Amino acid sequence: MISEDHPRYHSLRLREMIVDAWQRGILADSGMIAHGRGEAFDYLLGEETTKPAERAIRAAAAALLLARKPVLSVNGNTAALVPGEMVKLARELKGKIEINLFHRTPRRVKLIEEVLRDKGADEVLGVDKLTHIDGIMSPRATASPDGIYSADVVLVPLEDGDRTEILRKSGKTVITVDLNPLSRTSRMASISITDNIVRAVPAITASVRELRGSEREELERILEEFDNRENLRETIKLLDIRRYNPEL
Amino acid sequence: MISEDHPRYHSLRLREMIVDAWQRGILADSGMIAHGRGEAFDYLLGEETTKPAERAIRAAAAALLLARKPVLSVNGNTAALVPGEMVKLARELKGKIEINLFHRTPRRVKLIEEVLRDKGADEVLGVDKLTHIDGIMSPRATASPDGIYSADVVLVPLEDGDRTEILRKSGKTVITVDLNPLSRTSRMASISITDNIVRAVPAITASVRELRGSEREELERILEEFDNRENLRETIKLLDIRRYNPEL
Repeated sequence: MISEDHPRYHSLRLREMIVDAWQRGILADSGMIAHGRGEAFDYLLGEETTKPAERAIRAAAAALLLARKPVLSVNGNTAALVPGEMVKLARELKGKIEINLFHRTPRRVKLIEEVLRDKGADEVLGVDKLTHIDGIMSPRATASPDGIYSADVVLVPLEDGDRTEILRKSGKTVITVDLNPLSRTSRMASISITDNIVRAVPAITASVRELRGSEREELERILEEFDNRENLRETIKLLDIRRYNPEL
Repeated sequence: MISEDHPRYHSLRLREMIVDAWQRGILADSGMIAHGRGEAFDYLLGEETTKPAERAIRAAAAALLLARKPVLSVNGNTAALVPGEMVKLARELKGKIEINLFHRTPRRVKLIEEVLRDKGADEVLGVDKLTHIDGIMSPRATASPDGIYSADVVLVPLEDGDRTEILRKSGKTVITVDLNPLSRTSRMASISITDNIVRAVPAITASVRELRGSEREELERILEEFDNRENLRETIKLLDIRRYNPEL
């Protein structure tokens, strides 16, 4: 157990959750390494939701509210860190949840389905037969026919760049959460939220609640005014690490 | 197997070595996450040995050559990535190798000892009874009486900040290899090499060979001219990530 007084308590707590999920078989080995990369970028961002991230979160909420069929994708790291928050957001949107694993084994799918059901999910997609988006015969292109395959707006946190590109090319609005603003995922997505998933998902839910009563025109305006490329550019400016160590 | 044509071949190859070492029990779980953090910083440094890193490597070689008793410390990540290079450097210096693990179990010590002996190490310290530096009763302060405890110059790659501080306070010259120039380890060390260990260790060996014939005064001059704080400051400037994505 980590003391709450430890200066890196929150970061170490997430690390414990990741190791625990991996021990339970939810996370692939590569998921641990990916978490470490995220830690480094979060550290450089000051471990807080930046202004550009707030704008991306608001745009994501607007896109999800405008969606005909929003689908939320859950992978190992997402299941490790925010399973309950994903279920809550899906409920708020009356959207679907789909398990999406690159290192896919029946056991991992089953374990993650259990975690999501434990957190109150009624329906979990991606556990049965999958189809290939645009007929692309790659494990990066698989999706549930009733879920991501037929969705117009997808939230795919901690996603791979190739898959993000495939989803984008198929005409979907793709929302990602990724701590590296330079990653292919961040550059390929329609709306890139450069933030820690443990902060971003509850913030999207809060924003969905806040915007719920808005006119369609107002939501469309929020989306139109959001420029993902410009937003990433501003995020990258904030990653200037010199400011984190004025002593040096 | 990863294709050599893959744009991230070298990085993915190291990732495979890390996962393999962890599967063999050499690496603690936290070592995988730590590798991910290193990956992120290496990416921001352009995955090459920078000019400041070259200077730190040269200063490290001078310090090791001037040492009365140089000792090289090996932990799980070091054993996973550069066991043979560490043995080679120890031989070049007629220095000792000591296993130093925070998540210490007899099994991991044994496995790492085997890896080092496989690579040609005659003597491996840190496998028997340890003593506490300056009487500090912390697992971060343990060292072999015949190794780090009585060394004047230690190379402790991928080290923890607290332990680096303890080693420094005990009066030793502490050389680290750490990809995060802002880490406590980097700030606490006498000579901080901000570089990937797979590039840094062979480079130290090459520099030791090059400087081997130098006069003592010349080596002392190299050390005196090296300013660790200034060197870290220059490294941090190089981490300005905007330059890595001119498109944005």
